[in-house]
Amino acid sequence: MQNFDYMTPTRLIFGRESIVKLPSVMSQFGKKILLAYGGGSIKKIGLYDRVIKLLEGYDIVELSGIQPNPKYDPSVLDGVRLCKEHNIDVILAVGGGSVLDCSKAIAAGAKYDGDPWDLISYKAKAQAALPIVDIITLAATGSEYDCGGVISRTETNDKIGYMDPHLFPAVSILDPVYTFSVSKKQTAAGIADAMNHTMEQYFAADTTLLNDGFCESMLRSLMINGRKCLDNPEDYNARAEMMLDCTYGCNGILSLGNSPSGWPCHAIEHALSAYYDITHGEGLAIITPRWMRHILSEKTIDRFVKYGINVFGIDASLPKQEIAQKAIDATYKFFESINIPMHLRDVGIDDSRIDEMAHHVAVNEGLDKAYVPLTEQDIREILVASL
Amino acid sequence: MQNFDYMTPTRLIFGRESIVKLPSVMSQFGKKILLAYGGGSIKKIGLYDRVIKLLEGYDIVELSGIQPNPKYDPSVLDGVRLCKEHNIDVILAVGGGSVLDCSKAIAAGAKYDGDPWDLISYKAKAQAALPIVDIITLAATGSEYDCGGVISRTETNDKIGYMDPHLFPAVSILDPVYTFSVSKKQTAAGIADAMNHTMEQYFAADTTLLNDGFCESMLRSLMINGRKCLDNPEDYNARAEMMLDCTYGCNGILSLGNSPSGWPCHAIEHALSAYYDITHGEGLAIITPRWMRHILSEKTIDRFVKYGINVFGIDASLPKQEIAQKAIDATYKFFESINIPMHLRDVGIDDSRIDEMAHHVAVNEGLDKAYVPLTEQDIREILVASL
Repeated sequence: MQNFDYMTPTRLIFGRESIVKLPSVMSQFGKKILLAYGGGSIKKIGLYDRVIKLLEGYDIVELSGIQPNPKYDPSVLDGVRLCKEHNIDVILAVGGGSVLDCSKAIAAGAKYDGDPWDLISYKAKAQAALPIVDIITLAATGSEYDCGGVISRTETNDKIGYMDPHLFPAVSILDPVYTFSVSKKQTAAGIADAMNHTMEQYFAADTTLLNDGFCESMLRSLMINGRKCLDNPEDYNARAEMMLDCTYGCNGILSLGNSPSGWPCHAIEHALSAYYDITHGEGLAIITPRWMRHILSEKTIDRFVKYGINVFGIDASLPKQEIAQKAIDATYKFFESINIPMHLRDVGIDDSRIDEMAHHVAVNEGLDKAYVPLTEQDIREILVASL
Repeated sequence: MQNFDYMTPTRLIFGRESIVKLPSVMSQFGKKILLAYGGGSIKKIGLYDRVIKLLEGYDIVELSGIQPNPKYDPSVLDGVRLCKEHNIDVILAVGGGSVLDCSKAIAAGAKYDGDPWDLISYKAKAQAALPIVDIITLAATGSEYDCGGVISRTETNDKIGYMDPHLFPAVSILDPVYTFSVSKKQTAAGIADAMNHTMEQYFAADTTLLNDGFCESMLRSLMINGRKCLDNPEDYNARAEMMLDCTYGCNGILSLGNSPSGWPCHAIEHALSAYYDITHGEGLAIITPRWMRHILSEKTIDRFVKYGINVFGIDASLPKQEIAQKAIDATYKFFESINIPMHLRDVGIDDSRIDEMAHHVAVNEGLDKAYVPLTEQDIREILVASL
């Protein structure tokens, strides 16, 4: 078991109508709020009006139009400028992981004198950040319970995951009802995203019995509840279980004491969505089974066997190799069964930039230190197998 | 799924030699430290000397002799007096759950003008508390990651579990090596304590798939790693897994979204250890299987079936009633196999005060709202079955 230093100070207010606590939550932080959101879905479901009404008496400055795979320019830069101009006290992020990730970069940038990209690219370390409160409308990224974010910079094809302990949300408000209207496509992508967060931690050299069981239970829950959400988008319990499952995805609680894994599927997928702006969860679902097949060996087979038996209920009396293959097949088939496009060509990616992406990942993502180390050639092979 | 409002802001510094971070941790809080500890085992293992050396330059006031089932008088009262007299900035608790629980009561009492019992008995609400740092030497209670404590008041036979969000430790330092010297008796009691914390949350009317799997994994880990700790007290990995398992026991993370269960075994055991000052974990191990047998019914059987299959690997094709009975037997036999005395008479308790204890629990513990509501007669029957 590995040493660790862990803290997640975020307060989770979870459940139906938990938004009623918003005014008392916001009153801790001051009167000037930057309200950050995306493309208007929060207006469609009435959440925008509800927030505005609950926050009567506050000074609200708005930053809207934050996109999926949130962009440094214009969203982060605009947000930082607004915070500085209006002397903002607190950021209220309303939306999915992209809105929240963008808000985290803004929160750090607002308290930094230089170019905010210095912080995202780890050239400088944040000394402070504005407090962040969020209301989550999409179950997927787990950004509501971690201190990280992913920001894309279009002109350099960079998509960087950065973390800083100042960036834990102070409070995350999670009402599963706000996810009822999430499309089947985005629901499925959220399931795949959270499942992959779990697998990235489960597939490691040194794990604990507790973490293994916790991850296996997470994967089973995401598949069962995720499918229920797709079948009946207004199934409160299924949406609620899926939402909380997703919340645990990225703050490390699933793998305290495990050895680092390198998060290889994320590393590869970040190139895909940086180069092609595809849906992150779909990219992960495409990469995952190909990565699994690539790293399956005598050395890793026991992990796949455990995964197959405990997550998919594969007959433990079969030969190891057969269990492992069935487990990988089952992973692929699950994603396919929830209608995720399972080839890169299905999401508009051909082989023209494979070499370039493989090189980018190999140079920038440190996968030589992954659970199973990956060279540029390995990454290229995984991408080619995904075409 | 139930609504919840959850936060655990404690920083966990876990692993071999994590104590080296102590000076930088303490430097956040000020120069005047109340060093709280128990009967001297921390001197025997060299931890006391290590702490004193690491904290050269600090003003240290000592409160020693804190007992298991920590006492309001003298420990809490003495601690509060010392904090006020010496204008203490931070409490450093070094020891097991009892030392830490006592330190929590002191931390609240030091910032309160009236009788500290007001806080423990919920007559008054803490407005502030001194910060607490702890170094844990016994894996059991989970106090290092929750905001609660249990304090006994001998003259009234009260043993009260109280909670207050001000009482989360700021930092918990957990080095499994400090648990190498824990006796077999205390190791076994710690296993039983943490297992029961998990069961108290698992046996509830409304649970989630994720929580069920998390709890089942916790129970399996505690049994497997706990036994390894007993067989080889210096097995680092087993001590480490057990230590982290125990840490999750009481802060609610195992049951976010579950319906409340009432923690019935704890409620009953608190009377046993208040009246007879027995070892808490042993009392829990004695009560648990009798409570299980008492509440097994058509209404609860599915929970026992799930428990039996997933925790003990009982054949799922057997009749439900048989699985449930086998699961309860297996629970009893596991505790017996780690040499816990499994009858009240083995720990010096006869039938002379059963009625009095049953009445005390029925009046004070609210078990009419438990997972399976318990009347005074139910509690008496469970106690009689435990004799």
